[in-house]
Amino acid sequence: MKSIYSFHEGSASMKELLGGKGANLAEMTNLGLPVPPGFTITTETCNFYLEAGEYPENFPDELGAKLSELENKMGKKLGLSENPLLVSVRSGAKFSMPGMMDTVLNLGLNDETIKGLIKNTGNERFCYDSYRRFVQMFGDVVMGVDHDLFEEAMSELKEKKGVKLDTELTAEDLKELVKSYKKIVPNFPENPLVQMKLAIEAVFNSWNNKRATTYRNLNKIPHDIGTAVNIQAMVFGNMGDDSGTGVAFTRNPATGEKVFYGEFLMNAQGEDVVAGIRTPLYIAELEKNIPEIYKELFSIKDLLENHYRDMQDLEFTIEKGKLFILQTRNGKRTAKASLKIAVDMVAEKLITKEEALLRVNPSQLDNLLHPSVDPSCKYKVLAKGLPASPGAATGKVVFTADDACEWTGKGEKVVLVRKETSPEDIHGMNAALGILTSTGGNTSHAAVVCRGMGKCCVAGAGDIIVSAKDKKFKIGGTEVSEGDTITINGTTGEVILGEVKMTAPSLDEDFTELMSWADEVRVLKIRTNADTPKDARLAREFGAEGIGLCRTEHMFFEEDRIDLVREMIVTKDNPKAIEKALSKLLPIQKEDFIGIFEAMDGLPVTIRLLDPPLHEFLPKINDTEKIAELASQTDLTEKEIISIIDNLHEVNPMLGHRGCRLGIVYPEITAMQARAILEAGIECTKKGIKVIAEIEIPLVCDIKEFIAAKAIIEKVANELKPNFKYKIGTMIELPRACLTADKLAEEVDFMSMGTNDLTQATYGFSRDDSGRFLPRYLELGIIKDDPTATIDQEGVGSLMKMCVKLARQTKDDMEIGICGEHGGDPRSVEFCHQIGLDYVSCSPYRVPIARLAAAQIVLKEKTEEVARRDHGVIKKAASPKYFPAYNR
Amino acid sequence: MKSIYSFHEGSASMKELLGGKGANLAEMTNLGLPVPPGFTITTETCNFYLEAGEYPENFPDELGAKLSELENKMGKKLGLSENPLLVSVRSGAKFSMPGMMDTVLNLGLNDETIKGLIKNTGNERFCYDSYRRFVQMFGDVVMGVDHDLFEEAMSELKEKKGVKLDTELTAEDLKELVKSYKKIVPNFPENPLVQMKLAIEAVFNSWNNKRATTYRNLNKIPHDIGTAVNIQAMVFGNMGDDSGTGVAFTRNPATGEKVFYGEFLMNAQGEDVVAGIRTPLYIAELEKNIPEIYKELFSIKDLLENHYRDMQDLEFTIEKGKLFILQTRNGKRTAKASLKIAVDMVAEKLITKEEALLRVNPSQLDNLLHPSVDPSCKYKVLAKGLPASPGAATGKVVFTADDACEWTGKGEKVVLVRKETSPEDIHGMNAALGILTSTGGNTSHAAVVCRGMGKCCVAGAGDIIVSAKDKKFKIGGTEVSEGDTITINGTTGEVILGEVKMTAPSLDEDFTELMSWADEVRVLKIRTNADTPKDARLAREFGAEGIGLCRTEHMFFEEDRIDLVREMIVTKDNPKAIEKALSKLLPIQKEDFIGIFEAMDGLPVTIRLLDPPLHEFLPKINDTEKIAELASQTDLTEKEIISIIDNLHEVNPMLGHRGCRLGIVYPEITAMQARAILEAGIECTKKGIKVIAEIEIPLVCDIKEFIAAKAIIEKVANELKPNFKYKIGTMIELPRACLTADKLAEEVDFMSMGTNDLTQATYGFSRDDSGRFLPRYLELGIIKDDPTATIDQEGVGSLMKMCVKLARQTKDDMEIGICGEHGGDPRSVEFCHQIGLDYVSCSPYRVPIARLAAAQIVLKEKTEEVARRDHGVIKKAASPKYFPAYNR
Repeated sequence: MKSIYSFHEGSASMKELLGGKGANLAEMTNLGLPVPPGFTITTETCNFYLEAGEYPENFPDELGAKLSELENKMGKKLGLSENPLLVSVRSGAKFSMPGMMDTVLNLGLNDETIKGLIKNTGNERFCYDSYRRFVQMFGDVVMGVDHDLFEEAMSELKEKKGVKLDTELTAEDLKELVKSYKKIVPNFPENPLVQMKLAIEAVFNSWNNKRATTYRNLNKIPHDIGTAVNIQAMVFGNMGDDSGTGVAFTRNPATGEKVFYGEFLMNAQGEDVVAGIRTPLYIAELEKNIPEIYKELFSIKDLLENHYRDMQDLEFTIEKGKLFILQTRNGKRTAKASLKIAVDMVAEKLITKEEALLRVNPSQLDNLLHPSVDPSCKYKVLAKGLPASPGAATGKVVFTADDACEWTGKGEKVVLVRKETSPEDIHGMNAALGILTSTGGNTSHAAVVCRGMGKCCVAGAGDIIVSAKDKKFKIGGTEVSEGDTITINGTTGEVILGEVKMTAPSLDEDFTELMSWADEVRVLKIRTNADTPKDARLAREFGAEGIGLCRTEHMFFEEDRIDLVREMIVTKDNPKAIEKALSKLLPIQKEDFIGIFEAMDGLPVTIRLLDPPLHEFLPKINDTEKIAELASQTDLTEKEIISIIDNLHEVNPMLGHRGCRLGIVYPEITAMQARAILEAGIECTKKGIKVIAEIEIPLVCDIKEFIAAKAIIEKVANELKPNFKYKIGTMIELPRACLTADKLAEEVDFMSMGTNDLTQATYGFSRDDSGRFLPRYLELGIIKDDPTATIDQEGVGSLMKMCVKLARQTKDDMEIGICGEHGGDPRSVEFCHQIGLDYVSCSPYRVPIARLAAAQIVLKEKTEEVARRDHGVIKKAASPKYFPAYNR
Repeated sequence: MKSIYSFHEGSASMKELLGGKGANLAEMTNLGLPVPPGFTITTETCNFYLEAGEYPENFPDELGAKLSELENKMGKKLGLSENPLLVSVRSGAKFSMPGMMDTVLNLGLNDETIKGLIKNTGNERFCYDSYRRFVQMFGDVVMGVDHDLFEEAMSELKEKKGVKLDTELTAEDLKELVKSYKKIVPNFPENPLVQMKLAIEAVFNSWNNKRATTYRNLNKIPHDIGTAVNIQAMVFGNMGDDSGTGVAFTRNPATGEKVFYGEFLMNAQGEDVVAGIRTPLYIAELEKNIPEIYKELFSIKDLLENHYRDMQDLEFTIEKGKLFILQTRNGKRTAKASLKIAVDMVAEKLITKEEALLRVNPSQLDNLLHPSVDPSCKYKVLAKGLPASPGAATGKVVFTADDACEWTGKGEKVVLVRKETSPEDIHGMNAALGILTSTGGNTSHAAVVCRGMGKCCVAGAGDIIVSAKDKKFKIGGTEVSEGDTITINGTTGEVILGEVKMTAPSLDEDFTELMSWADEVRVLKIRTNADTPKDARLAREFGAEGIGLCRTEHMFFEEDRIDLVREMIVTKDNPKAIEKALSKLLPIQKEDFIGIFEAMDGLPVTIRLLDPPLHEFLPKINDTEKIAELASQTDLTEKEIISIIDNLHEVNPMLGHRGCRLGIVYPEITAMQARAILEAGIECTKKGIKVIAEIEIPLVCDIKEFIAAKAIIEKVANELKPNFKYKIGTMIELPRACLTADKLAEEVDFMSMGTNDLTQATYGFSRDDSGRFLPRYLELGIIKDDPTATIDQEGVGSLMKMCVKLARQTKDDMEIGICGEHGGDPRSVEFCHQIGLDYVSCSPYRVPIARLAAAQIVLKEKTEEVARRDHGVIKKAASPKYFPAYNR
């Protein structure tokens, strides 16, 4: 077993053995870059040590040999007082675990070698500062000394010297401090070899410290892969005016522009750049300061970007006029930059279109479609809720939908704060810039409606106590009243007091281009959830290939028709009166559908029949005004209407009289809706519009239920004889529908999975109530991802797979999609592709995300062998298309 | 293909070919009984005819031959005017379909043969009455003439003759009527052979009439098996004083006593006995009238009972001193008789114990355990609801729980009528004799509590509009006020105005004996759902082998502790205050468990931790009195308490913050309950009581959730170090728990399926709200059996099977039971046995039902090859025991 690799012996492909950092240092070394030399102790050695409690037999010899090699390369020697070698000892696992494990810098210093360092640098203060830092770091990290003790010693000294800042301490002061520190670390080893041995062991042991273990749990990193240890010669950017240090990006990480971007400080250490005590210079200044170094750095950045084929974030140090590259990695970037860099690099023929597609994180696209909080700005978070609908909004707080409208009417920007929202709040939600609720989850009314509107929403901020009556909300000790300004960040779930700087949305050619590539790759179709012609047109612009869910009831709430809907409901048990009410609703519904068919000309439109419980449409029982109005509109007394409202009350409306259960008990309603759809389709077809209608029966639990509902529609169809193509299918949103999908498939023409309701039933979580415990569950790690945001593959997903398998056993070309909110979540989109669905449908603003995610999974399947067959699902033939050029 | 079998050519085993009636007539003929001769046209012939539209080729020849044979046997001839043969033509399918298909009697009559009949009978009036009946029946059934026309002709004649009753018409009048009838049936065929051919075809065709098809749909009888046709010589009990007719049972069908039981009329037809115009005589009188006939009949009844090995219901006719047996079948009987006959027949060595067990319908046992409406009495049904808890009760109507207590205190018997009940009504439910609700289903609060109490309940009588405020309820035009007397029948769901005759419950030695046999046979263990020591003791008397579900929260509602529970809830977010409240509750909970452990000494006790949402325990928000009380009990203001109550409101409490979600967010509550259980167990063990405790964590959806809850219990256990055996397991009541049962099995010690909640989640039906559509679904046949009463094997059952399979993959001896209300439903009990569960748990009063059903399925598996392996479930070794004697 070879325990140690010199940098030049490794490569980027050896991450498993050398860790990410070690492999990267090796790669750069072999590229001929000026990397401070060093070697890497393998992860295998770490595992051996952790298991056996000792090093492998030949380890000491190897270490000796590699150290000699390093000493020779550097012309310095560990512990040699004239020309001492100083090294850093750093952890580095296969997967990045930033800050979780230990690091020791400046190892090799002792009372002898300090002299050599002073001689070499000519900077006594720097040397003693380095020395005292080393003693402190070694004491803290390796010897386990309480780091408060160092702070105390420092404070004492500063008091004694009458200074306030560390920087005011002289070389002499620091020398004294080293002595104090050594008293705190009585076992401080002067022998640099002992220092190194202990430091290596400390790094090994830090693999199992609590924060590293927790981090691995959270990030699903295996516990048995161990960390490598990198021992590297120290270089110093603070050895005079011909020294310096900096960080640079190969392109602008904020905009994506192809310009060399970064900053540096001469005669400084890395931490000085970060600490902000001195103001760093733009990288372009380096060209003026030391043109030959700039030139070298410039060509290195080109080399690195070309080599890694991605924008790089690199760290460099100049020691006495010599450039060293300390690190390179793929640079973090904004959504906008991510998109631009990916598209530009394709134009530069640096990467393929496929690679470009994989470079952009679909979730990030959200930021391009909505205003967002400027990532550079600092603010205090007042409370946290669920990030229910992305984007951010700043506005004055209002507590009722009516107030939201009124204030907006007066030109104010408002955020509507509610305990929860209901369909009655729609007008206020429409008026507000954003919505904040204290209960409800990711699929609560507020969340779903806001995503549909592309409006930001923080839902279920459970710590907030909303008092709509008093027009204020409380959070801890803070009270926020009507008119106070808050900012909500729907991308993070943060609630912030006051205003925060925002960045505006932007959709440019890069976006359009990348999307067109995605469309060429993906197999999954992307539809949208849209209830109005306006939403339908918007979604079509975003690339939707049809409507996967048109909720007819959302149309019911509009001003001009809610009265008619109410009339229909209160007269439901009087055949004559309901017939009258329905005859008034019919032409309005028909107009709605005409508008949608026109907007979706040539694309399929799935229209769901009335779904919510009827009481949702009625006025509240204490709303005497509206009740009186309703009484005057019908032959009923106010008392009778109150009694009807009272009788419609349900204990668990989610599990109550809704979905097709309504249309079966009140077949007139289903018949009216079927007539509106079919008459609209007939009229549109006559006008030359291509209508593809899918009539969807919701909440079916049994085939007989479906047959009963279908019969009502077919009776109308037999009468009207439609001149266009239509299907009758069902929403799959109950576990029983999945379990009996083979039976259902005998009768249904298509299936659309309502994964919101399916998740609720499978978990027994109500979207409106889970706010009471779900945040705690996420906090405790009982649930890793909110299942209403990302499909729970283990539970809900297994029902979905069952459904697909059973349904296609009966009908092998059964069209199956999903229309839950998961349709816009990248991981869920990937899962839907993998189990062989035909499409996902999501709110208009999430269509681009779904398009990209659907393309990525195709590419991942090819490159990472994420095989669809692993899911054991029968998928009808659908051979993914690739770009002809894709042939690396 | 042989199309026709003479009776002597068939046997009881040929039901498929000859139909039930034909096979039975054949069997009796071959037993040498005096059955009027005849023959049966096979079901195959029917199917051939229905498919081809014509008879098989050789059919006419066969019919001719069989007819000659019959004519020879009878010494009569079809169509011969001197001595005409008259026959009946009756349908008879494999499965009894009473009244669904057509029958023609007296076939062979025409204007010629009537003369011979008159000569033979000497009773002209009877003959013409028979003739006009034949013409009418033939016209109606065979020729499809509107039967109103016959009524009109009859009315006209009576008016003309100035009489009111049919019986007042003379022979001459009837002769005239025959003429009128023949005008109504102008194509009436005089030729008896044509009559016969048309009658046979009419019977064949009646197989596909609407009511027969509907009946088969409802009773799951295949549509392709066809009916046989029985042609049998007519015999007449009204040919003079040496003729007669009667029905008899081989034992008393009401009591089960072994006495010959029945009644007869001399010189009468069968319909005279039924019509009640003359009063029939007891069968014993026959001995005095015609001793030789009685003797013959007596020996025939013995022969039949011994042959069929069951109590027989037989029909006989005496024609001119000759006895004919027209029919025998297993007699319908009361629950009491069923039990007595089964046990007696074992003593008589007529049947085996196994057969005796299969003879008693487990559902019928309910009638033995509760008072029930006397089946012989007639009453008008006011409304129908769900038969939620069996038995019947008559009492004065009250509308609040408090009124129920008050009236009962004054010595009144009351029925509590509510829209729905809640835990706050418990005291009133306890006081009332029965409960009637207008909403809610078979697992609603009212239903579950009543079954537990053994109290009758009609739930979800949706047509009733209850106004508790006005103290009355309305149903259609009827208004029932406080104090009015009603009767509710929880066995049928009927609501009756006024009082109805009841039969008292009876539990005798027969019952005990049969139950002991059941216990020897069954594999499945039977536990009970009991929350108090009293219920536990009762259930043990009924044969429960442990408690499968002890709902700790039911204890919380008792007078002395609800205040403490409320204190616990309102102080839940204040660690110090809740600790104080819990410390007061702890000793009380502990006492509860001590009582239960004592009652169940040596048997397992499954204790479920707090399950319902907290708001269920709190006063209503407008109950200022109780809120004030609660405020005085705590440091909170009334306003704060109102705000807490308001904040606990949930949109869908069934899917809300309940089950283990409570104990995880408020671990102090779980810890207190664990401490109460464990301390109670320790104390009981010290007293020499054998404690087997199963601590059950409710509503688990994920293994991590279980682990979190278990950790709280184990922390307490580590402190207390219990000296007895206990397990920690979970309730399986969410689809996700079934889908991930393999994972759960890694941690849980036992699983108990809460099939109530599982059914609700799988169907998306709330027990509290399904009353709005479930009755309509049952009516439309969309759902055949209420899934909250009988396990839905297709949907919920497939999740259950999945759970058993997955759990035992991980842990092959995993203890799995069910504790939902299905545990007392015979078909569900059978299913639980078949999928390999260890036990079912049901309310005390249903324990005997479950014991019997569990035995029956073992026997059915042996005799009917209902193989458990069909369900593909791995079942740990459990070879059923049989009686050594069982060796037929």
